[in-house]
Amino acid sequence: MPEVSIDLNMVRVTNDDFVKKAEACAPKLQETVVKPVSIVDVVKTENIYPDVVVKDSIENLSSYHLAKGDKLCLDFGDHQVGYVTLKLASVGSPQDSPAFFRLKFGEIAKEMTEDSADYDGWISRGWIQEEFIHIDVLPAELKLPRRYAFRYLEIEAIDTSLKWQMVVEDVTCVSVSSVNMDQVKPIKSDDEMIRTLDKVSLRTLMNCMQSVFEDGPKRDRRLWLGDLRLQALANYDTFKNYDLVKRCLYLFAGQTRDDGMVSACLFTEPKFIVDDTFLLDYSMFYGAALLDYYKASGDMETLRDLSKCAYRQMELAGKQFDEKDLLICGEGFWAFIDWTDGLDKQAAMQGVYIYCAKKVREIAEILGDTEKAAELAKEEKAKTEAAKKYLLDSEAGLFVSGPDRQINYASQVWMVLAGAVDKEDGAQILEKITDMKPEKGMVSPYMNHHYVEALLLCGKKEQALDYMKYYWGGMISHGADTFWELYNPENPAESPYGSSIVNSYCHAWSCTPTYLLRKYFA
Amino acid sequence: MPEVSIDLNMVRVTNDDFVKKAEACAPKLQETVVKPVSIVDVVKTENIYPDVVVKDSIENLSSYHLAKGDKLCLDFGDHQVGYVTLKLASVGSPQDSPAFFRLKFGEIAKEMTEDSADYDGWISRGWIQEEFIHIDVLPAELKLPRRYAFRYLEIEAIDTSLKWQMVVEDVTCVSVSSVNMDQVKPIKSDDEMIRTLDKVSLRTLMNCMQSVFEDGPKRDRRLWLGDLRLQALANYDTFKNYDLVKRCLYLFAGQTRDDGMVSACLFTEPKFIVDDTFLLDYSMFYGAALLDYYKASGDMETLRDLSKCAYRQMELAGKQFDEKDLLICGEGFWAFIDWTDGLDKQAAMQGVYIYCAKKVREIAEILGDTEKAAELAKEEKAKTEAAKKYLLDSEAGLFVSGPDRQINYASQVWMVLAGAVDKEDGAQILEKITDMKPEKGMVSPYMNHHYVEALLLCGKKEQALDYMKYYWGGMISHGADTFWELYNPENPAESPYGSSIVNSYCHAWSCTPTYLLRKYFA
Repeated sequence: MPEVSIDLNMVRVTNDDFVKKAEACAPKLQETVVKPVSIVDVVKTENIYPDVVVKDSIENLSSYHLAKGDKLCLDFGDHQVGYVTLKLASVGSPQDSPAFFRLKFGEIAKEMTEDSADYDGWISRGWIQEEFIHIDVLPAELKLPRRYAFRYLEIEAIDTSLKWQMVVEDVTCVSVSSVNMDQVKPIKSDDEMIRTLDKVSLRTLMNCMQSVFEDGPKRDRRLWLGDLRLQALANYDTFKNYDLVKRCLYLFAGQTRDDGMVSACLFTEPKFIVDDTFLLDYSMFYGAALLDYYKASGDMETLRDLSKCAYRQMELAGKQFDEKDLLICGEGFWAFIDWTDGLDKQAAMQGVYIYCAKKVREIAEILGDTEKAAELAKEEKAKTEAAKKYLLDSEAGLFVSGPDRQINYASQVWMVLAGAVDKEDGAQILEKITDMKPEKGMVSPYMNHHYVEALLLCGKKEQALDYMKYYWGGMISHGADTFWELYNPENPAESPYGSSIVNSYCHAWSCTPTYLLRKYFA
Repeated sequence: MPEVSIDLNMVRVTNDDFVKKAEACAPKLQETVVKPVSIVDVVKTENIYPDVVVKDSIENLSSYHLAKGDKLCLDFGDHQVGYVTLKLASVGSPQDSPAFFRLKFGEIAKEMTEDSADYDGWISRGWIQEEFIHIDVLPAELKLPRRYAFRYLEIEAIDTSLKWQMVVEDVTCVSVSSVNMDQVKPIKSDDEMIRTLDKVSLRTLMNCMQSVFEDGPKRDRRLWLGDLRLQALANYDTFKNYDLVKRCLYLFAGQTRDDGMVSACLFTEPKFIVDDTFLLDYSMFYGAALLDYYKASGDMETLRDLSKCAYRQMELAGKQFDEKDLLICGEGFWAFIDWTDGLDKQAAMQGVYIYCAKKVREIAEILGDTEKAAELAKEEKAKTEAAKKYLLDSEAGLFVSGPDRQINYASQVWMVLAGAVDKEDGAQILEKITDMKPEKGMVSPYMNHHYVEALLLCGKKEQALDYMKYYWGGMISHGADTFWELYNPENPAESPYGSSIVNSYCHAWSCTPTYLLRKYFA
């Protein structure tokens, strides 16, 4: 169940020049002071999404005298990523014991109804945004040192004493991002849902754009290559922060495994280091992300600098094929594609290879690396033919994957995106798989994005829009201010981590409706 | 059950001149850097006191790689009051989640075996010395902002992740006190128990001597008048920090209730304020403590300044008598005497009144306030006669207390200390009550101190020493480095707070063996 890679013997090779170029692009974060807008009650409902009811005006905050067990829930009006300061005081007799209270931050109201004690997932419970704090002497200004991602903040007086009560006089959040909403014009549309899809996408993207493109500001708060690719696409049509993409591309190339493979993710704190997690689709996407960046920015120097790294990923991936030119699946957590449990990834990964080979060939063509271009063109062709010959089931008219010939969404979507089939055949394949509703569905907004983009590539605009409204709109109907890491309309409690308490509700790979709407519907 | 006073309508009257004089005596705390001496295991035994077994050398601290649920217990070698800094790092793959750990401080090993979740007492659970901490980025130096009282520190990695472990590279405590052990010569004795009683008393006193005489550095960390009186007595024969006593006496007189009554306790943070708790015995002891201070220091100016306050306490107490000159008990938490449940305090309080009237008369005599001296002499006489007439049961040969004529230790002890009976009668009374073992026994070391001092006043030196060895020596046999707030040899789990988890194990009113040994056995 745990999807974890550990390679303590991994040898890292650093390109200092690339790291310096990445550092030169580090953004200065923009700060916005935000105050809570109201005191609310989070009320459980019949489904897992509670209602949020305004309980009192925020002006009355300091009139609440919190005794043992009392709680206050503050609503900050929208999703925030920032640093929180509380002004606390005591009332009653002199404060004859430490103030002991809990702070609980939630990106969505549902988190406020969950008990951290119930968490039994396999990733760290340290991600749960909850602090237990003692303050010996009130009044005090409590400046929390950590950054939180939240809209709701609950303050619970775990204990005061029989003699005094705690008062929250003021709460402030200094929200941070490397961009701000004023930089982007909202999409104009008569359709409110389209406007909301755009707005929520932008907020998601903005709140993930920190010193790097983070996957999620609640969790894991770091740069993943697969997420970067989608964030960057959305960014080019909106915030247009090219330097942040450049920084991230240089970071990935700035430290690799000794065979040149780029890592799936990396850390910049306490110092820059790439992780010992390698996902074959993510490393192939390096070239795709580089080409996207060049096309948006026109930055030829970066394209040239980093092209070798893009080439190398395809060379490494090229070794993963059998004599039939079919991709050989790895072991453990070797490729991502989607979180769908039991998903066979062979065909989808074959599609990703073809997709990326085309992108990297284009880089080679731009740079005049004709030999590399030819080599990749040959690869594309061979892998496409193998896919059609061995993976396209003539009876079903669908791509199958792996020894059990699994039929799933991912295989069809990636073969379409790779151009392994033409637009008409692609449209038929997507219709078939949609009608079939295969057991191996789609869990992550990341996979759902690729499904929608495949529909759009095949000219199915109406269906794509309807699906966006159904899928991302579903999150909005449950109160999303930002789009989530994970959303399965048919299983709202789903989590790849064994418990949804650690799920992230502002997750960059979900931000693509703004990109899809602006690219295909403008 | 809760013994709490609240008087939100209390009017406080401040004497700025006295407050200034108190501030001028504020000590500069002495700092000592202390390191843990070993890594230990705290092993449960058949009784409630666990064994402490050395597990490893402290040199090996950083070789422990703490994964989810792992714990390390450090022994600092002796009781500390101070500020702790930890140097933390991670090992394994890059730190892909926040470090989430618990720090648990214990004055004695027993606290390390207790679970804060089990606490159900009536005073604040905020006193439990336990912190839950997240650190996003390791390595980090964690400088804890709060002061702790402890010998043992347990570090539990609540969660790391599957990819990395936490390492404790170093832990330091900056211990603080307004005095240090080098200022005092230990008692010379061939009897190891006497030397240990002295040493543990001194450590207790030292660790309570902070910016005021605290009752206990774990809990409540503030100045109580009853505790001050005993601490000051021990201090005069040991650390001789007269200024700290002077400071505390000026603080109590520096703010009183509008009728002039001194409070039972006071706070100096965030600013000086006296509490709305009034205990009649404690306020009467103001004069006794003032006289003790004068006798030790020779500071006539302070005696003169504060004499009016001492007189006023006796005037206020004088109103609490009926027409037979018997003390009328108050309601609620009106007097202390001891924590013994169901204790009738009438006779003991009558004794305290006589005791204090004598002390305050002596002040009046020194200052030449002849009228006041005469008035107090008259009071002494009347109250002593009433005690003998109405409270001394001729059949039992013991003092009785209250409407049910309760026979308890406290009544006998205070009548002896007050000199209501002569030395021979006192000796008989103490023998009788000791043989009788009345149901209403003694719980606090504070009460046990007065019992021993009564024995000594009646010439029963051997019995007094044996009792000290039995009572305070009992704590030592259970591993005490400092003497405890509460110790009942017959009920080790006893607590006045509903649970012993919040009991204080370095409590100033327990520090008197050093005083008794130096005064009566030198």
